[in-house]
Amino acid sequence: MINRDKRIAVLSPIAWRTPPRRYGAWETVASNITEGLVTCGWDVTLFATRDSITSAKLRAVIDKGYEEDPAVDPKVAEYLHIPEVFEHAAEFDLIHSHYDFMALSYSRLVQTPVLTTIHGFSSPKIMRVYDKYRDGYYVAISDADRALTLHYLATVYNGIDLSLYPFQPVAGDDLVFLGRIHQDKGVHLAIEVAQKCGRRLIIAGIIQDQAYFRQRVEPHLDGDMITYIGPVDVAGKNALFARAAAVLHLNILPERFGLVLAEANAAGVPVIAMNRGSCREVISDGRTGFLVDNVDQAVRAVGRLSEIDRPACRQRVEQHFSIDTMVAAYEQVYAEIFELEAKKQQK
Amino acid sequence: MINRDKRIAVLSPIAWRTPPRRYGAWETVASNITEGLVTCGWDVTLFATRDSITSAKLRAVIDKGYEEDPAVDPKVAEYLHIPEVFEHAAEFDLIHSHYDFMALSYSRLVQTPVLTTIHGFSSPKIMRVYDKYRDGYYVAISDADRALTLHYLATVYNGIDLSLYPFQPVAGDDLVFLGRIHQDKGVHLAIEVAQKCGRRLIIAGIIQDQAYFRQRVEPHLDGDMITYIGPVDVAGKNALFARAAAVLHLNILPERFGLVLAEANAAGVPVIAMNRGSCREVISDGRTGFLVDNVDQAVRAVGRLSEIDRPACRQRVEQHFSIDTMVAAYEQVYAEIFELEAKKQQK
Repeated sequence: MINRDKRIAVLSPIAWRTPPRRYGAWETVASNITEGLVTCGWDVTLFATRDSITSAKLRAVIDKGYEEDPAVDPKVAEYLHIPEVFEHAAEFDLIHSHYDFMALSYSRLVQTPVLTTIHGFSSPKIMRVYDKYRDGYYVAISDADRALTLHYLATVYNGIDLSLYPFQPVAGDDLVFLGRIHQDKGVHLAIEVAQKCGRRLIIAGIIQDQAYFRQRVEPHLDGDMITYIGPVDVAGKNALFARAAAVLHLNILPERFGLVLAEANAAGVPVIAMNRGSCREVISDGRTGFLVDNVDQAVRAVGRLSEIDRPACRQRVEQHFSIDTMVAAYEQVYAEIFELEAKKQQK
Repeated sequence: MINRDKRIAVLSPIAWRTPPRRYGAWETVASNITEGLVTCGWDVTLFATRDSITSAKLRAVIDKGYEEDPAVDPKVAEYLHIPEVFEHAAEFDLIHSHYDFMALSYSRLVQTPVLTTIHGFSSPKIMRVYDKYRDGYYVAISDADRALTLHYLATVYNGIDLSLYPFQPVAGDDLVFLGRIHQDKGVHLAIEVAQKCGRRLIIAGIIQDQAYFRQRVEPHLDGDMITYIGPVDVAGKNALFARAAAVLHLNILPERFGLVLAEANAAGVPVIAMNRGSCREVISDGRTGFLVDNVDQAVRAVGRLSEIDRPACRQRVEQHFSIDTMVAAYEQVYAEIFELEAKKQQK
């Protein structure tokens, strides 16, 4: 039995609104956890931007995300937002931080336990902070993204809001790339695959690396076979899924989780992804898509898309990557922390 | 009577070593305060880079300043360095912070009072943090640099180590610019003055704005009348002072304090400075230099340099800008804080 009679503070990033309008994986997951916990009956306070939308109590000191409002200085915003939850720590039984290594630096100054979901290591240099706070409570978002030097309470896969991505029984004809336009995401490889297959490719996402976009993507845009439509919101994603034979995700760096893979699968769309990082955990090879090692294998996988059972894609997401599954896993983690803390008190 | 039976933590910045090898005003002042307090018999712990030099106890988690070592990530270093003093707050009776608005964000999480010397406001945006922590203890480094919205315990002028800048009784012939090579510092105005006077100008300092250097400084460098010698250490400064008829400091932005003005005066060198900001507090017009409003007035001031009594320059620094004077002023501030804290305890 889970004792839900505890007060949880969820500390969300403030790069974007929680949930984000378009891009913003960390804020998406923080939102899904918050809403899921509220549904389960927890007393939850979300620390996020003031324009955030939540059924929990919202506590905000920053009006808008620093990526959305040039008037916001990210450093100033961060040094106002993060301490806010710690200055009110006594009002909570647990602080669940999604704010990277920065929030750890306040964690030893309060009595309230702090759980950090590590959404990714942006640089090996930040490991020094995790090493210092290695006695903290951590959750990994995939086994692939675990740091060997850290002790984790669990891996909890990100859960998506399945109601946002309705199942689409009929496959489309096009290939789709959905993600940041950046070398790491292998947009140029998706273009190569589409060209070799003679299939249409629709590219959507924020341009994170302008030079890469100009050199490796833009020259191929012809307004017909290869098109770029900018970032898309949930409705835009669903429109893309409706047209998709498959989502191509030929990432060059190991993915940390890959929310978009689960979203595509939720809509019944198979994913052709690189056989590295968390893709191996999110995609079941031959069942919800194909794991490939290079462009040629991806081209062959496009030829085998009819083998994929679309309802099975949806089903797998429901089982492993739903908000319910995620929140149930976090409830176990919370219970473990409360137990460990109670033991500390007894000593 | 000052009760020195207290433990002081001095939190220095980690852009440079404390004291810095060359440039680094904040670290210089933090060092001077630390050494001065130790001389007076206080129990002082300096939180600074590991390569720092001090007679206090040194506590360090970062090996080298992030401006001196490209391997150091400034953000990671900051999030390791600042919490270190707060995590050990209980070991101190006072934390004297020189770490800008960032350290404030930890101040409410500890019982130990925090005094912040505000070395300057880098942007109006950081005022939000100071506004939030307006109940903190603050010292201004000049009346000119006071924020109207903040309550200060005192203005305490920066003090320099007079033993580093020996008095030089005989005036040199050259004009000297000493400071960051940046538009704000008016290097181009110093060049204009030198050219109009037909005097030699030696420019020293780190190049902070490369474009400015290339466009406004470099074209005038002729290896004879206008020369640039890069950044200088203390010995280099003294060599410059030996050759100086005057130091030109025609800053465009109001100076916050202007350590170099005091250093020049300490060596007996008059300073021709802009009549704005703290220059009006550091330089006594007609006595230790001249305060001017424009290039033409500066040119006329060069013609009047013989009116300045060099020993009087030294004397004024001894009185107002020595480490002893500064530390005595801080001792008064500390005493006031301890008294206020004792009153809080009684309530």
